[in-house]
Amino acid sequence: MSAYTPLTPESLPQRLAGLSPMARAVGGPPESWRVCEVGDGNLNLVFIVEGPAGSVIVKQALPYIRLVGDSWPLPLKRAYFEYNALIRQDAADPGIVPAVLHFDEDQALIVMERLTPHIILRGQTMAGRKVAGLGATMGRFCARTAFRRSDLAMDPAQKKADVALFSGNVELCDITEKLVFTDPYFAAEMNRHTAPQLDPVVAELRADTALKIEAQHLKRAFTARAETLCHGDLHAGSIMVTGDSVRVIDPEFAFYGPFGFDIGMLVGNYLMACHAMPAHIPDPEACAGYQDWLLGVVRDSWTVFADTFRDLWARERTGILYPAALYEDQGQPGASAAACDQLLAEIFADMLGFAGIEMHRRILGLAHVAEFDSIADPDRRAPLEERSLLLGRDLVLQRHRIADIDAVLDMARASQAGQAAAGQKTG
Amino acid sequence: MSAYTPLTPESLPQRLAGLSPMARAVGGPPESWRVCEVGDGNLNLVFIVEGPAGSVIVKQALPYIRLVGDSWPLPLKRAYFEYNALIRQDAADPGIVPAVLHFDEDQALIVMERLTPHIILRGQTMAGRKVAGLGATMGRFCARTAFRRSDLAMDPAQKKADVALFSGNVELCDITEKLVFTDPYFAAEMNRHTAPQLDPVVAELRADTALKIEAQHLKRAFTARAETLCHGDLHAGSIMVTGDSVRVIDPEFAFYGPFGFDIGMLVGNYLMACHAMPAHIPDPEACAGYQDWLLGVVRDSWTVFADTFRDLWARERTGILYPAALYEDQGQPGASAAACDQLLAEIFADMLGFAGIEMHRRILGLAHVAEFDSIADPDRRAPLEERSLLLGRDLVLQRHRIADIDAVLDMARASQAGQAAAGQKTG
Repeated sequence: MSAYTPLTPESLPQRLAGLSPMARAVGGPPESWRVCEVGDGNLNLVFIVEGPAGSVIVKQALPYIRLVGDSWPLPLKRAYFEYNALIRQDAADPGIVPAVLHFDEDQALIVMERLTPHIILRGQTMAGRKVAGLGATMGRFCARTAFRRSDLAMDPAQKKADVALFSGNVELCDITEKLVFTDPYFAAEMNRHTAPQLDPVVAELRADTALKIEAQHLKRAFTARAETLCHGDLHAGSIMVTGDSVRVIDPEFAFYGPFGFDIGMLVGNYLMACHAMPAHIPDPEACAGYQDWLLGVVRDSWTVFADTFRDLWARERTGILYPAALYEDQGQPGASAAACDQLLAEIFADMLGFAGIEMHRRILGLAHVAEFDSIADPDRRAPLEERSLLLGRDLVLQRHRIADIDAVLDMARASQAGQAAAGQKTG
Repeated sequence: MSAYTPLTPESLPQRLAGLSPMARAVGGPPESWRVCEVGDGNLNLVFIVEGPAGSVIVKQALPYIRLVGDSWPLPLKRAYFEYNALIRQDAADPGIVPAVLHFDEDQALIVMERLTPHIILRGQTMAGRKVAGLGATMGRFCARTAFRRSDLAMDPAQKKADVALFSGNVELCDITEKLVFTDPYFAAEMNRHTAPQLDPVVAELRADTALKIEAQHLKRAFTARAETLCHGDLHAGSIMVTGDSVRVIDPEFAFYGPFGFDIGMLVGNYLMACHAMPAHIPDPEACAGYQDWLLGVVRDSWTVFADTFRDLWARERTGILYPAALYEDQGQPGASAAACDQLLAEIFADMLGFAGIEMHRRILGLAHVAEFDSIADPDRRAPLEERSLLLGRDLVLQRHRIADIDAVLDMARASQAGQAAAGQKTG
């Protein structure tokens, strides 16, 4: 054990030279390594280390974040949760998260595969570039991690041990509990929104007691429904892509939560990107085409999630829930399929609820999305944000009555067209 | 630390003489203590230790249980969970569980208050004796422990730490997962039921795929809904009473689970007692009167649970869920009350579901209840058990549509009268 000390580009080669997996991956003498710090400097140190054999990422947690000017302490142990999530996600869906080469708990440091030439998804969608297989890959990833890290598949002692392990991720869950589920719904200190343009709709949402009750029901699901290992922060900034490769990074918010949490947060981000698109693609036809593509990603995400989940249900239901002894072994395979469908209907409703909450907090809370924030003119930005706020509300309030993913797409299209009444069919 | 060694009446005074809280409570020289082993010998050693100043209970876990002839290992650490549950339950509702005088983790040993002249509730109800305040005390206990050990009241870091702690109670949860939620619904090895009299209804229940799906949805709630600290085994054998005092013992099955689990298991036990009563009180009028009293206990349990929960919601909602900042502080107290009512409606449905499951497993599974098992004549026993099986099914399947506790009582009365169609009003 050695005392935690942040790395620098200068100290890194000497300090990490003794790690054989890293030395093999980078190659050459450590003195020859090229080291470049590419983190945003606010939350973690992120170094690219290059040598003759290849390159790796070295990610080291810092003991604070700076989002609001003042320093905000954040424990180093989040690297421990990120490491533990990464190895579990890789086991559940190999090849999607970066391979871990080394973890040092004392130094809060992970050496991992460098994803290259991947770049962050958000920039790609803002630029109107498509990614082949995005919806399918993410739907499969969410379903595989959800199913395989739950009591549907795991040994119950191991699942309970993982619940205990990730229960320690208190401070990062606290961020979600406050900033996602609560602050957007009242005038909390760290909030910001496009003002005064959005003031009327913000007042309307905060007067909507049914909405605020549902938001807290969803928060209760977040804090208490330890169904599976969630990434915890699965938005377009946690996905890296090329034109046809999709990878997932940064699970430091990992926790045991609802099956539908990750895919819900993701869907919320896609729907916001849809709404913002007219500001990023001036040509209306091109914009509409890209919005259609994004809605296709939403549809694919859910349909592949559901298909994958059903397939795993049939093939890998080795856990303690819905055992074959009660259904298939009694000649009642239809009951097993019905149970799966009922669970998927619950997950679908949860997904829509979390999507709606995400669309609110990214416009009303502390952490916004670049799709909207990069629209310099508030008079241009506000009406697009308002569409997301209202669609988000409809998703939260109507989530148990929305028939299927096509109905969600219809609601999104109506909302894009500026139609206030959500759920109506366009045309 | 000393190696685990089971106590004997002979070794106990010498081994425990050094514990000052115990020595004070019992008084006199240890050589003068009277020690009597009163456990059933299957699960734990339970000693009454008496001296000039008073008496205490010494409970020591054994590393096995013997329920089915062969030995069944069970970890000693269950004493750790029992101790941790006892001190938390006592903090949440003082004076209901036995006061803990000493805990020795290595010896799996708890020295606790002796409840006297209390006896086990089950024997009292089978004898047709009433206990003043039973429903109110238990409703309040369930509500206080449920509310105060949840994210409605606790510091979130402490709640997550407790979730982690009780996640270790793997083996005892495994018993519930198997014996309560699964085995009764197929021909599992350890099952037994009154045969052949019940064979037709057992076949009917095991062919009822809707029931078997709901049973597994409820099992999923058991394994994943870490809402609050549950006693985990709250039946008439875990309650000790006098004519007007009600105490709760034996929380070694403690786990983080659904708000409605404990009170649901309890209600299931009361309803079975109702059904069994004609075999224990021959006089029809006296029997009917006692059944009415038991149904009043069911009504009181729920109404006092709900009233207590609402009162705590108003006064002690200091946790992260449904914060006053969103409701009361915005001049929307009605929204807060509505949120509480919605949560109570969920708890009510869960309670009925767990009650129904409990009524099945106590008749079809491994562990039966004395109310039925003591009826020697299977032709007398079976029709009474059948009423419980069918009422249990109706509670599970209709739980989201049953209006209120009076509707439950109506169903129970119809069932007692031998009316097959549950939910019908009598008369």
